[in-house]
Amino acid sequence: MSGFGFALLARDGAARRGRVTTGRGTIETPAFMPVGTAATVKAQTPEDVRATGAEIVLCNTYHLMLRPGAERVAKLGGLHPFMNWPGPILTDSGGFQVMSLAALRKITEEGVTFQSHLDGSRHALTPERSIDIQRLLDADITMAFDECTPFPATEAEAAQSMRLSMRWAARSRAAFVERPGYGLFGIVQGSVYPAQREESAKSLTGIGFDGYAVGGLAVGEGAETMKKMIETTEPFLPADRPRYLMGVGKPGDIVAAVTRGIDMFDCVLPTRSGRTAQAFVRTGTLNLRNARHAEDPGPLDPECRCPACRNYSRAYLHHLIRTEEILGPMLLTRHNLTYYQDLMAELRGAIEAGTLAVYAADFARRQQADATEADATTAPERPGV
Amino acid sequence: MSGFGFALLARDGAARRGRVTTGRGTIETPAFMPVGTAATVKAQTPEDVRATGAEIVLCNTYHLMLRPGAERVAKLGGLHPFMNWPGPILTDSGGFQVMSLAALRKITEEGVTFQSHLDGSRHALTPERSIDIQRLLDADITMAFDECTPFPATEAEAAQSMRLSMRWAARSRAAFVERPGYGLFGIVQGSVYPAQREESAKSLTGIGFDGYAVGGLAVGEGAETMKKMIETTEPFLPADRPRYLMGVGKPGDIVAAVTRGIDMFDCVLPTRSGRTAQAFVRTGTLNLRNARHAEDPGPLDPECRCPACRNYSRAYLHHLIRTEEILGPMLLTRHNLTYYQDLMAELRGAIEAGTLAVYAADFARRQQADATEADATTAPERPGV
Repeated sequence: MSGFGFALLARDGAARRGRVTTGRGTIETPAFMPVGTAATVKAQTPEDVRATGAEIVLCNTYHLMLRPGAERVAKLGGLHPFMNWPGPILTDSGGFQVMSLAALRKITEEGVTFQSHLDGSRHALTPERSIDIQRLLDADITMAFDECTPFPATEAEAAQSMRLSMRWAARSRAAFVERPGYGLFGIVQGSVYPAQREESAKSLTGIGFDGYAVGGLAVGEGAETMKKMIETTEPFLPADRPRYLMGVGKPGDIVAAVTRGIDMFDCVLPTRSGRTAQAFVRTGTLNLRNARHAEDPGPLDPECRCPACRNYSRAYLHHLIRTEEILGPMLLTRHNLTYYQDLMAELRGAIEAGTLAVYAADFARRQQADATEADATTAPERPGV
Repeated sequence: MSGFGFALLARDGAARRGRVTTGRGTIETPAFMPVGTAATVKAQTPEDVRATGAEIVLCNTYHLMLRPGAERVAKLGGLHPFMNWPGPILTDSGGFQVMSLAALRKITEEGVTFQSHLDGSRHALTPERSIDIQRLLDADITMAFDECTPFPATEAEAAQSMRLSMRWAARSRAAFVERPGYGLFGIVQGSVYPAQREESAKSLTGIGFDGYAVGGLAVGEGAETMKKMIETTEPFLPADRPRYLMGVGKPGDIVAAVTRGIDMFDCVLPTRSGRTAQAFVRTGTLNLRNARHAEDPGPLDPECRCPACRNYSRAYLHHLIRTEEILGPMLLTRHNLTYYQDLMAELRGAIEAGTLAVYAADFARRQQADATEADATTAPERPGV
């Protein structure tokens, strides 16, 4: 047996309360994975990240293969000792960042060749190489190598791209070295075309994976289309495997996706926003750079348990932002990650209690109660974009 | 009684083991004060700073009067709740930064007028205003307003500057509002001229302060001259008051100054170096940017207790520096501050044991044992320079 698994603990409509088991610990779902692109969740110590409630972090294969290099990380014992995160780590396959960051990309049946955005050096990624890099990094959850279909795409372009990803998924499965406690996830593509989403999901379940990701969303298609695509895909995903919506997202999108049966999420939004003075609070989003916070003795979010809210005023956080002090991003990132983890905990509780619909309605009402100052949630957010 | 005090606990030659008492806690001396220029020790939480062993931090009046403004800090309850540092805080008088940072400076008998380096706005500092700002900030230790005599200065220039500072010291004393647990320090000037140092020290003791600082050093005069000036000044400082060598410094300079009877220090070196990849270790200094650390699985300093040394490899710290991740400055600053605090604890222990001469000789030997990679310790380091 693989030692990697998923237990479905409760349901509330399409929503699921579950538990992913890995060799390095369990992950209560629905779960949000903070993004630690270059083997660090930006502006946080691993102890900070753990204190927010996070049980798993995501690292980016593309960034790590370029710097410091997968072989070097392997020589140093893998990502876990390297970055001092003993818990589970998911790595993406590198495909998405190659498309969004690298230069001179050339896609063939074999894979992708590209130039590093850092130093122009030539590299290649194939399903086999991506899976091998993720093994060298010692990822607990490995993602199949795919092409994240550009948006928008015609039906023909989307189908061609999706079918290439399905052939790469089979090669990823074949290249993956089974180890107890480790898992491999496939990625559903198909752009905004329901028939293609169905075809992709069936292809992947035919191959067989430890979990299934929904890819190619949060790329500009809009919240309504995203919801529709989740609804379209969900019936074709096996109930006994975790489902991961890649690169999502805004808090409201997460609530909507959980309601539609998604178990796992990742997004740079809480961390990136933390470095651009944006804070997620119970009533919406705040821009701490705004002068109206300059003399406000109150906390960022009176309901929040994080150190930024317990120990500091909005006035001090505003001061840190204005003076460009590193403690500003440190505290705001800590807060935003705490907000996301508390959101997930509340969603898990609501599913267990069978009250998710009430929670979701209340969430939407609260978000409208306060003016939203931030622009952080207006753009699609994907790691490395 | 003032509630502010100093107890001399032990002596070893000219060196002193003491304890400063303030209304917000005690400070074991010899002590190093981390610099928290803008009401934050850069890249550290207050909990981080406290964990290094620091009992007091220094904040800069010049920076805080410009941003966020002394009246605003006062309205928010003073520096302690503002920056979440419940322990003692020393503020400088602003004089030094006005000279090194501000534009269009004009010194008169009354004080200094200048333009902010941030937005060109016009400001004035007088002894009375500096003392009032420090009261508004709620500093536990207030520094008299002085002119840090430029270096080099002729004997006549130095005397003129020093005597102005002495008149300002008397005005600072008169402007200081006595409160239980709060103290006011005078600052000895006199450049590199022993007779002027003596005159300045006698002027200040005639006025009467809760502590005495030695100013105008670490400005380029060199280590030998610095030592000579401390030796020249020390006999004229009362034994029952703490002595503070401003803006010093390199670890070796601190050892030398403690040996010569100095009790308190501040310097941006450990924090600034932490943001430029420089680390102080038992055998010298390291530059973590250096490629030779790229695959080194060993700790920064095997003898150090800090998280950077206990939980990470030199290879990982090198990776953080190369990728410009915020965690790099966070961990290196934490390490450097820990190094400085451990140095002070060792000096205190050596004085108590009567073995300071042996410790100082051993310190010098160890520092020569390893090649020094860093350039961090080659330049004089003063806050805000």
